[in-house]
Amino acid sequence: MSDTPVQDSPAPAGLTPADLEQAQRREIDTPSSQVMRFGPADALPLDAGVTLAPWQIAYETYGTLNADRSNAILICHALTGDQYVASTNPVTRKPGWWTMLVGPGKPVDTDRYFVICANVLGGCMGTTGPASTNPETGAPYALSMPVVTIRDMVRAQARLVEHLGIETLFAVVGGSMGGMQVLQWASLYPEKVFAAVPIATGARHSSQNIAFHEVGRQAVMADPDWLGGNYIAAGRRPSKGLSVARMAAHITYMSDTSLHRKFGRNLQDREAPTFGFDADFQIESYLRHQGLTFVDRFDANSYLYVTRAMDYFDLAAEHGGSLARAFLRTSTRFCVISFTTDWLFPTSESKAVVRALNAAAANVSFVEVHSDRGHDAFLLDEPEMFRTVRGFLTGAAHARGIPAPGGAA
Amino acid sequence: MSDTPVQDSPAPAGLTPADLEQAQRREIDTPSSQVMRFGPADALPLDAGVTLAPWQIAYETYGTLNADRSNAILICHALTGDQYVASTNPVTRKPGWWTMLVGPGKPVDTDRYFVICANVLGGCMGTTGPASTNPETGAPYALSMPVVTIRDMVRAQARLVEHLGIETLFAVVGGSMGGMQVLQWASLYPEKVFAAVPIATGARHSSQNIAFHEVGRQAVMADPDWLGGNYIAAGRRPSKGLSVARMAAHITYMSDTSLHRKFGRNLQDREAPTFGFDADFQIESYLRHQGLTFVDRFDANSYLYVTRAMDYFDLAAEHGGSLARAFLRTSTRFCVISFTTDWLFPTSESKAVVRALNAAAANVSFVEVHSDRGHDAFLLDEPEMFRTVRGFLTGAAHARGIPAPGGAA
Repeated sequence: MSDTPVQDSPAPAGLTPADLEQAQRREIDTPSSQVMRFGPADALPLDAGVTLAPWQIAYETYGTLNADRSNAILICHALTGDQYVASTNPVTRKPGWWTMLVGPGKPVDTDRYFVICANVLGGCMGTTGPASTNPETGAPYALSMPVVTIRDMVRAQARLVEHLGIETLFAVVGGSMGGMQVLQWASLYPEKVFAAVPIATGARHSSQNIAFHEVGRQAVMADPDWLGGNYIAAGRRPSKGLSVARMAAHITYMSDTSLHRKFGRNLQDREAPTFGFDADFQIESYLRHQGLTFVDRFDANSYLYVTRAMDYFDLAAEHGGSLARAFLRTSTRFCVISFTTDWLFPTSESKAVVRALNAAAANVSFVEVHSDRGHDAFLLDEPEMFRTVRGFLTGAAHARGIPAPGGAA
Repeated sequence: MSDTPVQDSPAPAGLTPADLEQAQRREIDTPSSQVMRFGPADALPLDAGVTLAPWQIAYETYGTLNADRSNAILICHALTGDQYVASTNPVTRKPGWWTMLVGPGKPVDTDRYFVICANVLGGCMGTTGPASTNPETGAPYALSMPVVTIRDMVRAQARLVEHLGIETLFAVVGGSMGGMQVLQWASLYPEKVFAAVPIATGARHSSQNIAFHEVGRQAVMADPDWLGGNYIAAGRRPSKGLSVARMAAHITYMSDTSLHRKFGRNLQDREAPTFGFDADFQIESYLRHQGLTFVDRFDANSYLYVTRAMDYFDLAAEHGGSLARAFLRTSTRFCVISFTTDWLFPTSESKAVVRALNAAAANVSFVEVHSDRGHDAFLLDEPEMFRTVRGFLTGAAHARGIPAPGGAA
């Protein structure tokens, strides 16, 4: 079992920050993955009240769509994730961020299901976001990109799914912000979602969560290299600010217990404190590393946009304050999963979703997984989560008549 | 009842940031309070292995020392506190930060007790710290000031108390970092402490707490106006970085519940989100205000030094890993207080102190106060805390033969 979140493990030897930066720039407009491009005729209406055109959505697929087109699973990624859920990330050259869950024989079995994962709107890995080139100016959109919402992200994904010829997704699965998208999908397109698996998430972003995001945004915007968002055109990067933002956020992804177990008050490569401001403690060294590696793979403006989308998320508010109304008459089957030590999206938030689904007479199961690893648990080796997802999807596949890899339904 | 921490309520009308900055600069070397100055003959040995001379300690007193010199209470302040526990702060012109607890007729009754409160070593309100003028150079010490520890702070206070002619303090009282000093006092000078009241604190700084401090320090040091610590000499201030640090820290002082109750997802002076990066939510506006007002009253390098002192605190480590050994054969009476929703210094940390005191056969009482206001509760109107402190001190005063204000012992 590894405690280190997959997405920020050390980069392979030989990759310099310059290599990473160059690769990250390249992926923004011309991703290594598949990409679907939409022209003015397919403009995307946004919650901000404007339309976006042209726009593009970058995605990866795994497995094979069956003849009935009934076995497609959409995976929704979290704040800093991307479409490379089970394949090598072209920037960091690291394995996909959810390879323990998604792949041949895995709980989301690519021998049985056709898996789609798309970079979110506002992201920086090939789907249109603030780093994308505005064709009208030839420069990055920066802050001229409209602010997007979770619902906008889902609308963009729905266009992709539609153009892939899939009428109904077998399942939508995601954790954290990915789980918000799962709930939004089920609410917005109930007829298009056979099963939904929202993990470590909630139906709204809490005041405390907004507060942590706001600290991160202020850290980015305080960096003089942010330049009002126009750093790319100026050949600069607000790396220090983005690094501080990532450090603050990273603390919220772990539990006090896991921090204590992993680091305690251990000193970093020294016998005694130095009485200075170097990273004396292992936790300091670890956090600095998290901050530094993050800026090599993520765009600062995208960080502003995607955190903002999470902050704006409030599914009940879209339905007159009633979360149950967001799911009225749904026939989607739900499997809600939380983790005992997740304090960013505590179990109480998942229970609020379950109560609303019950009030809407929905088909819902709920599992609180025992883990001491906090919010990050959803990205880690958590056998109880894997068993839960596997079991739920297998049952749902049976109900939908999707054959097992061996041939039996 | 007010939910707003006293120390960062809005400044009185008419005070400009320039006024505040000028006042803050003045207080560094020439505090409005009393100050005791020590020359080379009274150099202060520090845990860093060097001695500090000359040095000074700024303090306020309230009430009257009795003829027996038996009624002195030392109040220890928290991270960003100061000596103005119950008198007007000369920079912000605001009331003292613990006037609900300390004053005539209050639980720490200045009609009965002689109260002393000193600015900590490393601080910026008149006790020697990184902003103080180094007499050898005429410039601020900045990072040439040695890093100090909680034990160094306590040693400095002990010099003050000794020079005030007080052999034994009736009580030492403090919350958060103030509580760390209380525990250090009781451990280092058991014969000088009749009673001890550590509130909302712990015997060590946890990995998670170090992590939050490290984010704050990185935010300060990432600010280009920090200039390697030499901003004062250059006429600059790393205000943006210090503001971000304060915002991150401030979240940890409140509970998720209190944030939800105070702010929820309420918008700030608007009916609908703006789809931009202004402070749409009240919590954002509140945090930005906390950050901005803080930089007017606190020195950025002091923030580095004092957070570092907290991080280094580990009372058990000073005693071969045994916290009980830190209190062996103590005759001090302890009253340990924690708050149910304090996640910075959770009740488990107080219980660890209580267990160690029990193992050392100490006289200890413990109260967990029910409050939904998180760590900040110790600075707020919490009647159960007030009753606990008043009752404990009254009993201890009786045991020590300190007359009640009316005359009866």
